[in-house]
Amino acid sequence: MLVTELISKKQSGGVLTNAGIDELVSEFAVGRVPDYQMAALLMAIYFRGLDDREGLRFLDAMIRSGERLSFDSIPRRKVDKHSTGGIGDKTSLIIAPVVAEAGVPIPMISGRALGHTGGTLDKLESIRGLRVTLTHEEFARTLTKHYCAFGAQTESLVPADKRLYALRDVTSTVAIPPLIAASILSKKIAEGTNALVMDVKIGPGGFLTNEFEARELSARLVRWSAEYSVETIAVGTDMCEPLGRTAGNRIEVAECLDILATGDGDARLIELCAVLGGTMLKLGGVCSSTDDGKNEFLRILQSGTALARFQSIAEEQGADPSVWREFESGERAANAQEILAQDDGFLQEIRPRDIGLGLVDLGAGRCIATDEIDPTAGIEFFKRRGNRVTRGEPLARAYWSRSTTSVQTGLNRLAGAFVIGSAPAETRPLVYFETK
Amino acid sequence: MLVTELISKKQSGGVLTNAGIDELVSEFAVGRVPDYQMAALLMAIYFRGLDDREGLRFLDAMIRSGERLSFDSIPRRKVDKHSTGGIGDKTSLIIAPVVAEAGVPIPMISGRALGHTGGTLDKLESIRGLRVTLTHEEFARTLTKHYCAFGAQTESLVPADKRLYALRDVTSTVAIPPLIAASILSKKIAEGTNALVMDVKIGPGGFLTNEFEARELSARLVRWSAEYSVETIAVGTDMCEPLGRTAGNRIEVAECLDILATGDGDARLIELCAVLGGTMLKLGGVCSSTDDGKNEFLRILQSGTALARFQSIAEEQGADPSVWREFESGERAANAQEILAQDDGFLQEIRPRDIGLGLVDLGAGRCIATDEIDPTAGIEFFKRRGNRVTRGEPLARAYWSRSTTSVQTGLNRLAGAFVIGSAPAETRPLVYFETK
Repeated sequence: MLVTELISKKQSGGVLTNAGIDELVSEFAVGRVPDYQMAALLMAIYFRGLDDREGLRFLDAMIRSGERLSFDSIPRRKVDKHSTGGIGDKTSLIIAPVVAEAGVPIPMISGRALGHTGGTLDKLESIRGLRVTLTHEEFARTLTKHYCAFGAQTESLVPADKRLYALRDVTSTVAIPPLIAASILSKKIAEGTNALVMDVKIGPGGFLTNEFEARELSARLVRWSAEYSVETIAVGTDMCEPLGRTAGNRIEVAECLDILATGDGDARLIELCAVLGGTMLKLGGVCSSTDDGKNEFLRILQSGTALARFQSIAEEQGADPSVWREFESGERAANAQEILAQDDGFLQEIRPRDIGLGLVDLGAGRCIATDEIDPTAGIEFFKRRGNRVTRGEPLARAYWSRSTTSVQTGLNRLAGAFVIGSAPAETRPLVYFETK
Repeated sequence: MLVTELISKKQSGGVLTNAGIDELVSEFAVGRVPDYQMAALLMAIYFRGLDDREGLRFLDAMIRSGERLSFDSIPRRKVDKHSTGGIGDKTSLIIAPVVAEAGVPIPMISGRALGHTGGTLDKLESIRGLRVTLTHEEFARTLTKHYCAFGAQTESLVPADKRLYALRDVTSTVAIPPLIAASILSKKIAEGTNALVMDVKIGPGGFLTNEFEARELSARLVRWSAEYSVETIAVGTDMCEPLGRTAGNRIEVAECLDILATGDGDARLIELCAVLGGTMLKLGGVCSSTDDGKNEFLRILQSGTALARFQSIAEEQGADPSVWREFESGERAANAQEILAQDDGFLQEIRPRDIGLGLVDLGAGRCIATDEIDPTAGIEFFKRRGNRVTRGEPLARAYWSRSTTSVQTGLNRLAGAFVIGSAPAETRPLVYFETK
């Protein structure tokens, strides 16, 4: 095909035909459109945009590039949850077992850490033995048995998205709103969910830094998924500070296990889990309203029964049953260092982007896709935003096990994330909007 | 190097640093910057542009990517001539031997046909035996002996331009004015010329379709080459109709040999050669003004002595001495077909782009760089623009030797290039401007 014609059409502000998009995406998925031509087209799209028809056609062509799963054998409404990514965002690990416990199946296909945000798969893999690269059969078996399975995108699930995302990542073309929506939805629609709760993060800890962009993406996700009979509710939530008391991989799993066991923990984190989980219960048809769903979610969480479900799912996916004792004993990283308050005053901000980048330096994240992760690297917060602090008082403790040259940079970045001021911090909403 | 940082900087309208451009170009030239990242950056540059400092730095980095020739052993001012490309543009083959005959050395490194425009190298290669891929030594020897050599860009001459141009060609990013200037000048400066006459074509037969763009490119070429002590005069000339009585490869060489032998031929073509060649004589220091240069050019041309010089140069580069008889005998292509006037009236236009594209279909040009050329494919014009024509009268004759599926398309395109109207055609200038 003559890709240069598509490129020059988009360059001059034209629209691509359905046939053009179909051929482009299917040929690209099998390597017959060279990366350099797709890169040039992506940059032209960055400047010229895609209209709704073009964007939907990209989504459609991406879905058709691979297989489409179906879990019709489970006679319930499947509901998934997805987040655009943030710092300390461990909600999936808490929500999934609670919602499954309520009888709503969750076919959860998640991503890995890239850039400054964490990834659910990396967190799960810090549980010794747990495998996330499941075959379709393993995934279906786990989902049928436990109403939840945690999987990674396989080679056959939306291969066009896999290639396209990897290329966008290295060509500075991630920030194309319709392709962000197409990338998210292609995987969710191909994985066979019937409904979706989207957590659209707003703030410097996520990819969208303002509410306008977040509302636009949310509206597009709701509108486009409806074309595939997938009911989506998008919730715009705050990512101006890390979520919960920890950030990292193993350390976040430990926080989740504690919350699942006790039903108690960081109030803001639990509130967000209840909002998202409650919405899933509503979409799954087990509660008549989101408020009812929220109450039911908290009831199950506080009962503590979701812990056993989480452990069963993890063990079904290969986790060593002896691993849970290690989390209880508090086994940790080889190195630790406290971050001390540099001043008296109020903790004004814990800048999430600096936390995220600092954690990458400590080994908790990736600069490029092939980087290996140190599962023990992370941070534990002793103070939260708004707390009064005294000079010299510990604000947090950083952990890591690998001694690399970037550790000191990372510790400095983490320390720089804490902003102390003389006035109390203003309160900030947790949920900005809901789009359905 | 982090190319994504350069890309996102340019995306957001920023300027690239000298160090960034230097590293980018040198790493790209040796294959350490992947094509897909360069393609994304090129498209961002297409939309955001390059300022003068950035463009000059690209030029500088491109020159430094390879070797820089020098012909200081020839104690005269070397002057080259370059055209942005057109249909039937055979001026180099006429100008070079005449200017050399006047004592001005011309280190001519030319290009090949690509897209709808012809290339000097392909024309030269239709002379049996003639080689244009000369070593530096062969090139220097021919230039020293005959004051002219016809060469192709070698692997070591501006390798960054060679790679970059090939990538721009397949990613729809040729139309970036500062990179057009950098591409032209990098080769001219690296080949060691002291002065340059640029023929900037204006009209649908060239790459620039309006005078504004042509003036802008001309000013940039003059300004930038001065930074390298290369004196450039740019002449904006018409490319709204094919140049001369023929277009193709072998057929254009035959036209040139005839003009060199007789001093006579198509008036518009000879006028253009005299303007460009006269400017070269002025720049070479053998005439005191362009007007004097023009007169001297025509005097030498009419004397007929330049023919022997052209033949000596060609034979030095491997042309079989018996080949000239074949041109005299009019040996031609295997197939020919006349194009007849469809109406009575005046020939209003011979659309050069349709002629160029039709000739590519007949085999005279290339769609992609690896296409092989049919040297015999071409067209001979019996009528010129403005002539009165009668329905059924032959306007031109097309020639080709390879029977491919695209021949009929080509013949139709050629026929469609001739526009007949009832009113006489308005006159059009040959030279629009001169920039120095």
